[in-house]
Amino acid sequence: MADPRFFTRAGPFTLNQLAKATGATLGPEAPGDLDVVDVMPLAMADEGHLTFIDNRKYLDAFRTTKASAVFAAPALEAQAPEGAALLLTEDPYRAFAVAATMFYPRPKVEPGIHPGAHVASGAEVAPTSRVEAAAVIQDGAVIGDNCLIGPGAVIESGVAIGADCIIGAGVTLQHCLVGDRVIIHPGVRAGQDGFGFAPGPDGHLKVPQLGRVVIESDVEIGANTTIDRGAGPDTVIGAGSKIDNLVQIAHNVRIGRGCIIVSQVGISGSTQIDDFVMIGGQAGLTGHLAIGKGARIAAQSGVMRDVPPGATIGGSPAKDMRDWLKESAALSRLVRKKGG
Amino acid sequence: MADPRFFTRAGPFTLNQLAKATGATLGPEAPGDLDVVDVMPLAMADEGHLTFIDNRKYLDAFRTTKASAVFAAPALEAQAPEGAALLLTEDPYRAFAVAATMFYPRPKVEPGIHPGAHVASGAEVAPTSRVEAAAVIQDGAVIGDNCLIGPGAVIESGVAIGADCIIGAGVTLQHCLVGDRVIIHPGVRAGQDGFGFAPGPDGHLKVPQLGRVVIESDVEIGANTTIDRGAGPDTVIGAGSKIDNLVQIAHNVRIGRGCIIVSQVGISGSTQIDDFVMIGGQAGLTGHLAIGKGARIAAQSGVMRDVPPGATIGGSPAKDMRDWLKESAALSRLVRKKGG
Amino acid sequence: MADPRFFTRAGPFTLNQLAKATGATLGPEAPGDLDVVDVMPLAMADEGHLTFIDNRKYLDAFRTTKASAVFAAPALEAQAPEGAALLLTEDPYRAFAVAATMFYPRPKVEPGIHPGAHVASGAEVAPTSRVEAAAVIQDGAVIGDNCLIGPGAVIESGVAIGADCIIGAGVTLQHCLVGDRVIIHPGVRAGQDGFGFAPGPDGHLKVPQLGRVVIESDVEIGANTTIDRGAGPDTVIGAGSKIDNLVQIAHNVRIGRGCIIVSQVGISGSTQIDDFVMIGGQAGLTGHLAIGKGARIAAQSGVMRDVPPGATIGGSPAKDMRDWLKESAALSRLVRKKGG
Repeated sequence: MADPRFFTRAGPFTLNQLAKATGATLGPEAPGDLDVVDVMPLAMADEGHLTFIDNRKYLDAFRTTKASAVFAAPALEAQAPEGAALLLTEDPYRAFAVAATMFYPRPKVEPGIHPGAHVASGAEVAPTSRVEAAAVIQDGAVIGDNCLIGPGAVIESGVAIGADCIIGAGVTLQHCLVGDRVIIHPGVRAGQDGFGFAPGPDGHLKVPQLGRVVIESDVEIGANTTIDRGAGPDTVIGAGSKIDNLVQIAHNVRIGRGCIIVSQVGISGSTQIDDFVMIGGQAGLTGHLAIGKGARIAAQSGVMRDVPPGATIGGSPAKDMRDWLKESAALSRLVRKKGG
Repeated sequence: MADPRFFTRAGPFTLNQLAKATGATLGPEAPGDLDVVDVMPLAMADEGHLTFIDNRKYLDAFRTTKASAVFAAPALEAQAPEGAALLLTEDPYRAFAVAATMFYPRPKVEPGIHPGAHVASGAEVAPTSRVEAAAVIQDGAVIGDNCLIGPGAVIESGVAIGADCIIGAGVTLQHCLVGDRVIIHPGVRAGQDGFGFAPGPDGHLKVPQLGRVVIESDVEIGANTTIDRGAGPDTVIGAGSKIDNLVQIAHNVRIGRGCIIVSQVGISGSTQIDDFVMIGGQAGLTGHLAIGKGARIAAQSGVMRDVPPGATIGGSPAKDMRDWLKESAALSRLVRKKGG
Repeated sequence: MADPRFFTRAGPFTLNQLAKATGATLGPEAPGDLDVVDVMPLAMADEGHLTFIDNRKYLDAFRTTKASAVFAAPALEAQAPEGAALLLTEDPYRAFAVAATMFYPRPKVEPGIHPGAHVASGAEVAPTSRVEAAAVIQDGAVIGDNCLIGPGAVIESGVAIGADCIIGAGVTLQHCLVGDRVIIHPGVRAGQDGFGFAPGPDGHLKVPQLGRVVIESDVEIGANTTIDRGAGPDTVIGAGSKIDNLVQIAHNVRIGRGCIIVSQVGISGSTQIDDFVMIGGQAGLTGHLAIGKGARIAAQSGVMRDVPPGATIGGSPAKDMRDWLKESAALSRLVRKKGG
């Protein structure tokens, strides 16, 4: 089980309860009243545990698992290990996510303001929310219901945060409007000045940055990621988008709904990213681009042109993924042919 | 206008006032006593607003703008929209920067030490400066006039900061000497140990890092950027240089005056960068290089050799920009010719 | 000498003392009772100083140095400058590291809890350790002997830290177990949720992250680096490994002993890195890889396949270093031949 120093387990739950909560169907030999006591990855699962298989690469582990129950696709039913109850579903990973959340629910926020927190008299904090030690909430800031403001977090003047948000330790927010159910991990910086200068030989003149950062509901932002506020328009992170650690999002960028942006990506100013775009780690996008809906950008890509909806691109400079792979292959052949 | 939750607008200002402040000339039909109430990007400008055009790509928007006044180059005079007063200048963006700062000046620092700040008895803070809640200023640190030390910022022993500086929330400074008018955005780490080890099979032995970080006047440093102190010599950021977010600057690096370094760049130990160098996002420079004055390094470049003054380079490994572009084109042709 | 604002020098030490401590041998004309008062890089060394040479590139500086004593390999004995005493050793840089630590030892931790620190009643802090202002230590956290918890650092519930550790300013640790003699530089984030979602058109479902971060003894972690906790297994940083600034380490990654990971590297989820691997700056590794013992990965590499022990690879996608260099050369030739 997860280390009890850090995690509190709920349960047990019966297979019937789990099937109902996840939309899975009990396999033919699965006893609905069987108790499961914990969730576990396939490689670590033992008696009493619930696990899942969503990758044929792990079929051998599946066939020999000692887990008491397994979320699996119906197509795998014939290969089930003896003694393991199946919970059949077309999306075993998603079902496992639901079940894991039942066993390890997010801890309830204990309302209250730590005596070591610094909440300005002109700030509004909902009485259902918690503010930890050394956190700072300035005048004019508004914190909605059931929020957790972590130790040392700084919510500057005028920032508004919706309900059910987690603001991690050491986060700093300025000039931000934040929706509901947003999770911001430790060290995120949002709302500081964008990188705007009128360059010149006698000095680069700072251009006032007059926009905001708008973080819509159900967004999650990874540790030490930076999001600059808009220069005039806002910088916007669309609802349900997930951003990993150490990502850079420049001023005026708009990210659509449901995007996934992996660690260390950099997005330059004013680039517009439509819904459900996926961007691999360390990719970089220049400014003023339009990235179409559902586009997929490979890790370490260098994107210098607009990307059409649904396209998959890679390389630096980035091009259609197939072209990039062909070019890599052609270059290898060129060397081999010449005897290197 | 900019969201009044976060910004306080000054003005109005007459065209005469704006022309005088920016060095622009009134166009032939511009009434000098006309009041302008706000600044706005071209796409959002309306009656009463002052905007600018500095890119022919936006000529259509220029021709149809409802803005009351526009900074524009004299060459565009003939295409001015009816009813818009022109403020003629060869550098419209710079003029706009000046005007925007008139409408939205940096808020004055309200002197004082927040009761929740931790200022050691052996620290010196000028009475004109402000220290916010949860900030920590250790013994021997010196803060000059009119500085703002943000919430949760940490100024360690002996650090000296000049006048008119802004140290953002959650910044940590050690072993640093900071000039005047320096802006350090939230989460910057400066002055920690460089990455110095004598490697060996029985363990990598730490080499004491005995230098400092010297940040000259008028420097701006972006959020979560890291600058290690020198190993023996200092790490130096030259006057007027602007550094974006999440940049890594290793020990002993010297950056000249007026450089622009975009987000996620990494500069390895002891590399020397001359004045007015520009480095695009995510570029990486190995150690012990000399980068000549005015050199331009494209985004995502991998720089492994010295760069002559004025050169423009790209690619990884980086080479002359034209060669890099030719190679990319040749590779594409190679694939096309072979039918892919 | 190092700036006395920041550094306190010990000594002087005699050549005999230095030879004994470093395992070096006195050169034939080196007086064992000669006092040395400071350490200095070769380019800056003067009378009374001890320096070192470990790179033939600096032979000229060696031949003319005014330093009183020099760590040098026996092979260089004949080229020694007149008047400089030699301390002969096969690893001059390592000897210098030892000597520099004698002159500039790590300051002793002054035990005590700053009145501005926030230590929960259910936390255990060894009486030999120090907790600085605005630091937060939550219930159930345990801090061993002789630790320094920097200003504004946050040690969340249940985190256990061994002896002789330095936790820098503004660090946040959750779900972490930390060994002895670990140095964590400012702004490091360890133990937050990994980037785990079951994606779907109606929203990406968060997968509970139920592992920990285990940081073994003698590890050093650079500023603003992020280390996510495991999803089920732990994320592990092996003993003696050194990690630079702004590195991303995703959930379930295991790093072996004695690895060196340079700034801005990104390591994706579940990748396993064996002992003594070196990874150059800005390299990226995809998930679920196995990197063999002693492998060397060049800066900016994009690693998408397993790497055998001892291999040296480069490029993106990464391949054997020699192949990568040949391909780069072939591409240059291709362009030159065609007249560009």
